[in-house]
This record gives sequence, C-alpha cells and structure tokens, in this order.
Amino acid sequence: MGATMETVSKAKSHGGVQGVYRHDSRVTGTPMTFAVFVPPQAAQGPLPVLWYLSGLTCTHANVMEKGEYRAAAAAQGVIIVAPDTSPRGGEVPDEPDNWQFGSGAGFYLDATQAPYATHYRMYSYIVDELTALVAAQFPADMSRQGIFGHSMGGHGALTLALKHPDRFRSCSAFAPIVQPSTADWSRPALEKYLGTDESAWRAYDAVALIEDGKRFPEFLVDQGGADPFLDTGLRPQLLADACREAGIPLTLHLREGYDHSYFFISTFMADHIAWHAARLCR
Amino acid sequence: MGATMETVSKAKSHGGVQGVYRHDSRVTGTPMTFAVFVPPQAAQGPLPVLWYLSGLTCTHANVMEKGEYRAAAAAQGVIIVAPDTSPRGGEVPDEPDNWQFGSGAGFYLDATQAPYATHYRMYSYIVDELTALVAAQFPADMSRQGIFGHSMGGHGALTLALKHPDRFRSCSAFAPIVQPSTADWSRPALEKYLGTDESAWRAYDAVALIEDGKRFPEFLVDQGGADPFLDTGLRPQLLADACREAGIPLTLHLREGYDHSYFFISTFMADHIAWHAARLCR
Repeated sequence: MGATMETVSKAKSHGGVQGVYRHDSRVTGTPMTFAVFVPPQAAQGPLPVLWYLSGLTCTHANVMEKGEYRAAAAAQGVIIVAPDTSPRGGEVPDEPDNWQFGSGAGFYLDATQAPYATHYRMYSYIVDELTALVAAQFPADMSRQGIFGHSMGGHGALTLALKHPDRFRSCSAFAPIVQPSTADWSRPALEKYLGTDESAWRAYDAVALIEDGKRFPEFLVDQGGADPFLDTGLRPQLLADACREAGIPLTLHLREGYDHSYFFISTFMADHIAWHAARLCR
Repeated sequence: MGATMETVSKAKSHGGVQGVYRHDSRVTGTPMTFAVFVPPQAAQGPLPVLWYLSGLTCTHANVMEKGEYRAAAAAQGVIIVAPDTSPRGGEVPDEPDNWQFGSGAGFYLDATQAPYATHYRMYSYIVDELTALVAAQFPADMSRQGIFGHSMGGHGALTLALKHPDRFRSCSAFAPIVQPSTADWSRPALEKYLGTDESAWRAYDAVALIEDGKRFPEFLVDQGGADPFLDTGLRPQLLADACREAGIPLTLHLREGYDHSYFFISTFMADHIAWHAARLCR
C-alpha cells in the first residue's frame, strides 16, 4: 500500500523508459496498473508530469501502444502518466457486456451508490493516491502538472483541471465528452454511480462545473469531424458556449475527416504535448 | 481473386489514410489481410512504396498500431505496405502452441514439403500476387520500391532485396534474423517447410545468399543491445562479416539498452523511413 509498487515491465524507448507498474490501491480496494514514460532528461533533474486519461474500454495500454507520445515527450522533456480507466477484478461489480459502464468506464468519479461506491473511486484514486505514488516513485516535479485525455478521458481531464486549477497548469483533450450528464451514452452510468439526483452529477460534468463557477486559464481541444460520436455524445459546441460565457479561452480544432480512434489521437499527439510543454516548462 | 479486394477499415491519420484490406489469395489459397498507409501527397501523383515485413507472431496490425510510421511516411511521401506473416485459417496446417512455426511464422518462403507447400507460400504471395494487387489498387510508383522489416521480417526484407535487386532500391532492417539456417529458433521451421536438404535453405538465408553471390547496393540495420535474442537468434555480426567479405556497405547501429519490441522499433522508425525516402525519392 501507499508508495509500494511493482514493476510489470520496462523498456527503453525514444531515449527514455516506458514502464508499466502495479500497486494495491487502498482507494479502489483493487490492484491497479498504470504506465509511466520517463524521458531521458530525467537524468538532469525532476520533470513536469503530463497525465493522460483514456477513454471508454481502454486500459493504460491503449495510449501506450497506439498514442505515439514518446517521441514528443522525449523531445519536450515531459513525463507521461497513463492510469487505467476503472478498478478491475472479480470482486468489482461490473456489467461485462456494457462498454459504457463498469470495467473500462470509471468516468473519473467517486461513486456514491451501492454496490459501486466501494471500488469505483477513480477520482480520488488519481487525484490523491496515484498522484502521491508518482511523486514518491518517479523523477517528477509535481509543481508542474498538466492533464489531457481522450473521450471519457477528455471529460476526466477537463473536470479534474476545473476542480484543481491550483494543481494543473495546462489542460487539453481529444474528442472529450464535455457534458456527460446530458448524453445518452453516459447518463445511465452517472445514475448508477451517483444516484438519481442529477444535481450530484454536476461535480463530474465540465460544462456544469463552468456554469457553476469553476474556472481554468485556457483549454485546447481537438475533435475529429468524422467522429461517429460527435453530435450525440461529444458535442464540443456545448463546451465552446460555456467557455465563451465564462470568459475561458478555448482553442477548438475541428479536424476534417478524422474519426474517434487512436489514428486521430496520434496525429495530433505531438501538437498537444508541445502545447502543454510550453506551459509546463516556462 | 486477382485484383479484387475488400476494405476492412479505413481511417484518416497524419493527413493520409490508414487502411486494412482483405483478398482471396490464389497463392496461399486463403483470405489474406494487409495494411496500407497512403500519405496525403498521393493526391499529386504516384508515390514510392516501402514494404514492411513483420516478425514472428505478428499480423499486419502490430506495426500498424505500434510502429509509429505514419508521421514519417506522411512527412516523406512514402506508401507503407504491411503484409501478414503467414497464411491463416482452419485448412492451413499449423502448430498453435509453436510461435516459431506455422501461423505467424511463414518466414517469407515458399514451402516445398507436404503438408505445408499448399498454403505456406509467403515468398510468392508477396513478390508476385500482393505486389500486383498493390500496383493495381493504390497510387503506387512500382519503379520506386523499398523494403524493411523486423526480426523474421528483417530476414524477409534482406532476402527479398538480395533476390530482387532490380526491384528494390533500398533495404533496411530492425534486429533481423540474418542467418536462419543456423539459428535454433528457425532451423526447425526451415526443415519442416523446405525439407532436410539444407542446401535448399540457402535461398532463404541472407548470409548464404551473399556467400552465394547475391548483391545489394547497401543495407541499414538497427539492433538493440539489450535484445534477448541478440546472441542466439539474430547475430548481426554474421551479416557484417558477409557484407564486408562481399563489399556490400552495411550501416549497423547497435542501440544500447533497447530490446526486441516495438518500443525499440518505433524509436528508430523515422530514421529508417527517411533513409529509404532519400533513396526512393531522389
């Protein structure tokens, strides 16, 4: 527990080390696996930390294998941390045939409803426990943290940044779910995790957080124009409207012809990492 | 058959199109799947073709997902073709528990021994049938072809280049099996595919082909220094010795700390693509 972790694998890549690690989480009550890339500049001292939160169905491995982040992270001197998207294991309540709830769909929140409240606590897991573990185990300058993510992980990045503007200096997203409390593919999950009182959902909804007064210096969002979830689940215009209303600068790129996959994400990964680095390294 | 193929998937990536295609191969007698990345420059006319041959256990998908080749291919204007590594399917004789033979281990040869000779014909499949299909279906300038690959696919790239110096203008490899006829992990496969007369194996062995008089203008090889197969299966020094003896320029980079995985390959992928492009685009 605490700062104890085991190394699952380590490989040199792009001059740095791509590792996969596992620890027993007291927050989720399960073993948790995560990936960390430490670029070569770590030999000269602590480096900024950029958190990447993944989307529905993903583990730490999807972005590690398909995200193409190592070249840019090594060029910029930024550590990349990729957590899992939910607790997993036999004792964790799940709906194996439902990709929008349960395993792979933790939505970066702390569930309040039985039987989910025991294990589904990805918000506290990342913000408290994994953050402390990363600080203790890696050459990380925790005064310089940024956060980004994809889809459900874009939702995670936006909401965590809005709730911790003191901690995160930069936030961006690929095709984020900007208002999960009103999207068909996320409402059932929020109800199961948080109950039927929708006012409780607003703490895990980027647009609602902005409406309720949370602020962040600026956001960068890339969205594929051929994303099949664009008009139903993602709806970046809702974020644009909320940001304009709140005076939060938002750079929103609609990328014509790109879908929701890592073929899209990897195309703009280097742009996002450079954007974060400009804010984390200055 | 012939030039008929179906599109399995297509996604925009790095400005180009990453596709996966399937066709009924008359050479292997099975459906065959392969990946092609067409960079955006194809709108201006036919582009050079760079073949990537994968290693043991791989399909077309490993390099497509983990190879990080699209950024460099789009920057250089080179089409990347990634074939499968063997025929597959219920009618194909296989040893499912043996990763060094059968499915995923076609060794880019034409088997001569029953029952393998019917389907295991990856040499003719790539050199004849898939080449014709690519020429017919993609904006490819077939007068400008290069070839590279990893491990068993490095063996494939070296042997195909040595046998077709008229066709391929450039050849490189990541951690290639340079002399499969003397390595423990490949000898059993060659015996099953080609029979016990080892003189027949020399046609599918890069070092033996060079010893027997085949030539190629130059080779580029990257090899991880922490590759667990370095001293037993790969032995790049054997290629270096043969090239020196034959007067073939070989650039051999021993990369300290790198293993045999795509974490290694992806690190040097852009270097290799630029090296090929310098020879294919001039």
